[in-house]
Amino acid sequence: MEYTPKEELDKRVVRLQEYLLEKGLSASFIIQKADLFYFSGTTQSSVLFVPAQGSPVLFTRKSYKRACKESSLDNIMPLNSNRELPDLLRDQEITHIDRIGMEFDSIPTTVSGFYQRIFPSTAFSDISKAVRDVRTVKSHYEIELMREAGRISDDILREAKSELKPGRTEVEIASHLLTIAYMAGSEGPAMIRDWNRGAFTLPMVLSGESGAIASFTDGPLGGAGISSLVSFGPSGKRIKEHEPIVIDIGATYNGYQVDVTRTFSVGEMSSSLMDAYEATLKIQERLIKELVPGKKCSGIYRIAEEMAMDLGYVENFMGYGENRVRFVGHGIGIEMNEFPVFAGGFDTLLEEGMTVAIEPKFIFPGLGAVGVENTWLIKSDRPEPLTMADEALGIV
Amino acid sequence: MEYTPKEELDKRVVRLQEYLLEKGLSASFIIQKADLFYFSGTTQSSVLFVPAQGSPVLFTRKSYKRACKESSLDNIMPLNSNRELPDLLRDQEITHIDRIGMEFDSIPTTVSGFYQRIFPSTAFSDISKAVRDVRTVKSHYEIELMREAGRISDDILREAKSELKPGRTEVEIASHLLTIAYMAGSEGPAMIRDWNRGAFTLPMVLSGESGAIASFTDGPLGGAGISSLVSFGPSGKRIKEHEPIVIDIGATYNGYQVDVTRTFSVGEMSSSLMDAYEATLKIQERLIKELVPGKKCSGIYRIAEEMAMDLGYVENFMGYGENRVRFVGHGIGIEMNEFPVFAGGFDTLLEEGMTVAIEPKFIFPGLGAVGVENTWLIKSDRPEPLTMADEALGIV
Repeated sequence: MEYTPKEELDKRVVRLQEYLLEKGLSASFIIQKADLFYFSGTTQSSVLFVPAQGSPVLFTRKSYKRACKESSLDNIMPLNSNRELPDLLRDQEITHIDRIGMEFDSIPTTVSGFYQRIFPSTAFSDISKAVRDVRTVKSHYEIELMREAGRISDDILREAKSELKPGRTEVEIASHLLTIAYMAGSEGPAMIRDWNRGAFTLPMVLSGESGAIASFTDGPLGGAGISSLVSFGPSGKRIKEHEPIVIDIGATYNGYQVDVTRTFSVGEMSSSLMDAYEATLKIQERLIKELVPGKKCSGIYRIAEEMAMDLGYVENFMGYGENRVRFVGHGIGIEMNEFPVFAGGFDTLLEEGMTVAIEPKFIFPGLGAVGVENTWLIKSDRPEPLTMADEALGIV
Repeated sequence: MEYTPKEELDKRVVRLQEYLLEKGLSASFIIQKADLFYFSGTTQSSVLFVPAQGSPVLFTRKSYKRACKESSLDNIMPLNSNRELPDLLRDQEITHIDRIGMEFDSIPTTVSGFYQRIFPSTAFSDISKAVRDVRTVKSHYEIELMREAGRISDDILREAKSELKPGRTEVEIASHLLTIAYMAGSEGPAMIRDWNRGAFTLPMVLSGESGAIASFTDGPLGGAGISSLVSFGPSGKRIKEHEPIVIDIGATYNGYQVDVTRTFSVGEMSSSLMDAYEATLKIQERLIKELVPGKKCSGIYRIAEEMAMDLGYVENFMGYGENRVRFVGHGIGIEMNEFPVFAGGFDTLLEEGMTVAIEPKFIFPGLGAVGVENTWLIKSDRPEPLTMADEALGIV
């Protein structure tokens, strides 16, 4: 079990404090799981108090002993109930709490209402975007973890081919891939910042027409899923020869993930689908050149969309018809949907140390999906692939 | 793919409307995934408008076509953006929207703020508890789905024994059990009403001392997990002979789940752990007699706690020391933590048609956990087990 080093936590907290000072906030309470892990190194049930100046205090309800072991923060206090927070802050002589930021993009309405009741004189405001911004540029420590996640994803994909046997269902293949992922050292499904996603576990394995079935998520791939509750991802459809089989997986190491997609087929696909697949590789190749510091994310999306148009696939780019989604990539780290977003309106400039997944995909109704995805580290000259650079189409 | 019948949805909506009328609310917006599935039959990205009187309207953003197929509600309308809701309601001549209830236990603060902004004259309030109450008593249709989930859980447990080989890790066994679960027809991990649970997938397989490692959840079992992010559930610990191996799994069919726990060992456990295990069976046997309409849930918890005390295990009951949790069972259905709760302060009276999981467990630091759990349907005379009635200790 690896724990986040103290100097790493200290640097992260300082970045959050710079934001708090800039906005005139007195402090923040961090409670959302991914953020808590980022700033404290533990996911034990806790409230992390970060003052604009001074040392953070981690109040842990359960398990206090584990939090003490897992977090390298100096000040960790036991908490019986969140109701005690006002008294505990007072005991610590913390009185500067007139303006407090919280992650209102995640915290339920009743929970924020509770905080307002126990701190009646405090003005609470949303700092979700700032917290996500702080997490965007990765440290050397984080990048090493993502490199390891990348190696694990390579192992999974290398074994994936042997799972593709005509007649097997998507769910069967996906559940075997999940076991392969755990055995390769992955920690399981990706954390996603989405309060209403429901319970989904299986890697995406979508064959033939399944690749073109849209679902509720704002990604290019949906899938029939297993039932009208689990209405996303692999289904009971059996894979066949000559159809595209899109496998979109994550791998996670010590909390950090990569995202990768490969297109496979058992026997060759039709030449028109092959052409489409080659076109997604062309878009990827072009976009890699843009993945350098100073480039605008919205501009990179525009290039991708224009290329899809020029290549004759604008109708099929990242979805089909009313189900097209308007992005071509996303930041990734502890969560699968981190900043920046490669979409119109997202004018973030790329910076060294950002980690992003770029995923040009084409969807053909009735036929399926083709495409590619890799996770990249932004460096001064050209990006470093964190996932397997070799992405020849996997014809089994 | 099975879809919820119209008469089923109609009855559910009527129960919600009775509550709205009683509380003087004009309507409710239902958006939380489990509730949306319950009242509309689909989990496509939607807002379900339920007026206190009249027909509900399902507004679906993605995928509209799938929502039309999956939901048997009469009125399903496409939605491009939630911003359109005020206009769309006006188009439908729905003007009685002065007091609207929403699921504030789940809906993030920024999302409820957004609704308040687009409906500035509406007074919003929390109806989470009412919605959860409506879902507590199951219909014949729901019970049949849970019976099927129960049969699937039997199949998984029957195969579990062959996975228990000394030297295998908890994660290895758990990931194989997950594949077995999918192959047996289960839909994957349980839906849980908990906004901050993080990403957890694997069934609980905790061997020896792992069974006594507490984590952030409010259940009796924790586990070391895989990392300080995935800090819950099975770990890389290898199973050994003569130690208790607790397997706590769910199985889900068409959105409905059961919850079941069995204690296994490879070779016999020590006689003191065997005694403790037998004591959990005695508590279960006693509690079954209490699972009849009219009994108070808090009273049933008190009986369990008193028995644990009389049998000499009060220190170990549902956790150890500061990590003891104070309940012995919970409602179950679409979500794993439904009402009622068998805990102090929960004075709900049992009713016919409620479905509950009862899970007496003892935790011994350094040694592990023993216990049993089954899912029961409350009937007029005695409860019907929805999970395998035979729970002899699984000595491999």
